[in-house]
Amino acid sequence: MLPPFDPGAAAEASAQVGFATFTLDRHSERREEPGFVEAHRADPRARFFIVLGETPLLGLDGTALFDAETIGGLDHREETVFLGTGPDGPLFGIGLGKDVTAAIEAWPDLAQANLRSLAIDGSLPPALLGPLGAAKAVLGWHARHRFCSVCGQPSVPAASGWRRDCPACGAQHFPRVDPVVIMLAISGDKCLLGRQGRFATGQYSCLAGFLEPGETAEDCVRRETLEEAGIRVGQVRYFATQPWPFPSSLMMGFHAEALGDEIKIDEKELEHARWFSREETLLMLDRKHPEGLITPPPFAIAHHIIRAFAEG
Amino acid sequence: MLPPFDPGAAAEASAQVGFATFTLDRHSERREEPGFVEAHRADPRARFFIVLGETPLLGLDGTALFDAETIGGLDHREETVFLGTGPDGPLFGIGLGKDVTAAIEAWPDLAQANLRSLAIDGSLPPALLGPLGAAKAVLGWHARHRFCSVCGQPSVPAASGWRRDCPACGAQHFPRVDPVVIMLAISGDKCLLGRQGRFATGQYSCLAGFLEPGETAEDCVRRETLEEAGIRVGQVRYFATQPWPFPSSLMMGFHAEALGDEIKIDEKELEHARWFSREETLLMLDRKHPEGLITPPPFAIAHHIIRAFAEG
Repeated sequence: MLPPFDPGAAAEASAQVGFATFTLDRHSERREEPGFVEAHRADPRARFFIVLGETPLLGLDGTALFDAETIGGLDHREETVFLGTGPDGPLFGIGLGKDVTAAIEAWPDLAQANLRSLAIDGSLPPALLGPLGAAKAVLGWHARHRFCSVCGQPSVPAASGWRRDCPACGAQHFPRVDPVVIMLAISGDKCLLGRQGRFATGQYSCLAGFLEPGETAEDCVRRETLEEAGIRVGQVRYFATQPWPFPSSLMMGFHAEALGDEIKIDEKELEHARWFSREETLLMLDRKHPEGLITPPPFAIAHHIIRAFAEG
Repeated sequence: MLPPFDPGAAAEASAQVGFATFTLDRHSERREEPGFVEAHRADPRARFFIVLGETPLLGLDGTALFDAETIGGLDHREETVFLGTGPDGPLFGIGLGKDVTAAIEAWPDLAQANLRSLAIDGSLPPALLGPLGAAKAVLGWHARHRFCSVCGQPSVPAASGWRRDCPACGAQHFPRVDPVVIMLAISGDKCLLGRQGRFATGQYSCLAGFLEPGETAEDCVRRETLEEAGIRVGQVRYFATQPWPFPSSLMMGFHAEALGDEIKIDEKELEHARWFSREETLLMLDRKHPEGLITPPPFAIAHHIIRAFAEG
């Protein structure tokens, strides 16, 4: 698989969001083929992301990719994940154990990076940000799954980092991706935005929540909007998806038709929610709102869900 | 939350599939409220599904719901999940330990049921099939997650069955839902269907695959179609979602524009794949194909994805 498949696909909404650009060939059907990934590992063009627990490590000059020689000098390597091959060669992610303060001190050329900040400030090109997000999601999953949930014994990495196997009971475990719905309820010319206490000052965004067993994405949109803001919604329209590596979700974006406009927030979930006019929402997107209210930046799918409404 | 929210929502594609009807109020925000779920548990109208490992147990007369007195007589009860409240009272799921052949023998009024068969033959009304699917998905998750994946120690059920907590390291674990894309590639008047060796004789269906960290649903549709059948696809259009309790997935259905028609199957994934005309597909849906070829029954989202194409 070597994207791009089709120039038209690059225009789709799901391609506009942060962490969505992944142009490597994953070779997912060959990850267990004897010698296949090993040969790529030995390719002198092979490059490696480094992730400490859930945190990417970058060079002091902003470098995100390291060669095999550099990686070979790092202690506390726990897992390696084969991300795929691109025009410049194979890419891997290397996970370090969580308690490696000492290793970091011994490696003064590396610094912990904030993946959200990297996505916001654009200091990494999208073609690297996507694979780094994937590496962080898979390696973070390894870090939280070193024991078998079936029998409690230690499990071991398999399938080039895309599985863990339990030698004791034989169970296989695969990296987890949690589906999350994120939605904009619309009532006539107004949309519903809320803010959580942890948001940046003045920021409002779409409501969102984890999908549960036994519900469709559409039912989850209706349940979460009612629970968090007291608003019933009817028709639900799909917008786009986004891989979200915090820790490892699939954001599924929707627009939804509100059936009422009387808000009653769940104070455990939201600090505030209110209706915003199309005009006001445009000012927030463009950071020109007179009261300094803002929406999330363009790396977040919420930005695009809101903009699609605001621009009609 | 008490559905229906809106008569219009009942017409959406996601509402037409098996396991999608869930009209209980989940009270998801009150699962940890002291006394709340306990009061529902003590309600004389409370009813219980019983799940053995991954298998629902039904009465010999087909009954799926049992009262508290019956449940109280069962040994090997491991977990209880609060599913929600409906017009007839609260519903729960009870999980039995896996090795309870003896308990079953001691309880001659119960028989193991096949959840797929229940969905196909319609012997359970949709309003029960959806919650039973959810109970099976959550209780099956418990059965595979009795140990903490972070530290290997035994974990304990929490939040009325919607979480497991680790007393040793403090980690919280939530029921897993795995996103899966399922898609129909279309080339002009033809669509691409494949069959796996395990399928019923003559059955063809949509291609499908698990979504991985770092990809949008649309990219996953393109990757899986290329990997399994050698067909590149461009534009991808959302159709619907389906909760799928085998063991616990969210099926995300799409139509996709094929960019070529030369099929090259991955023989590890598929036994055969070919293009079918709209007319032939209609005959398969209606079980009138002269060679006896068929598509999956209406409880499967694949049926609806194919029918939407076939009927234009």
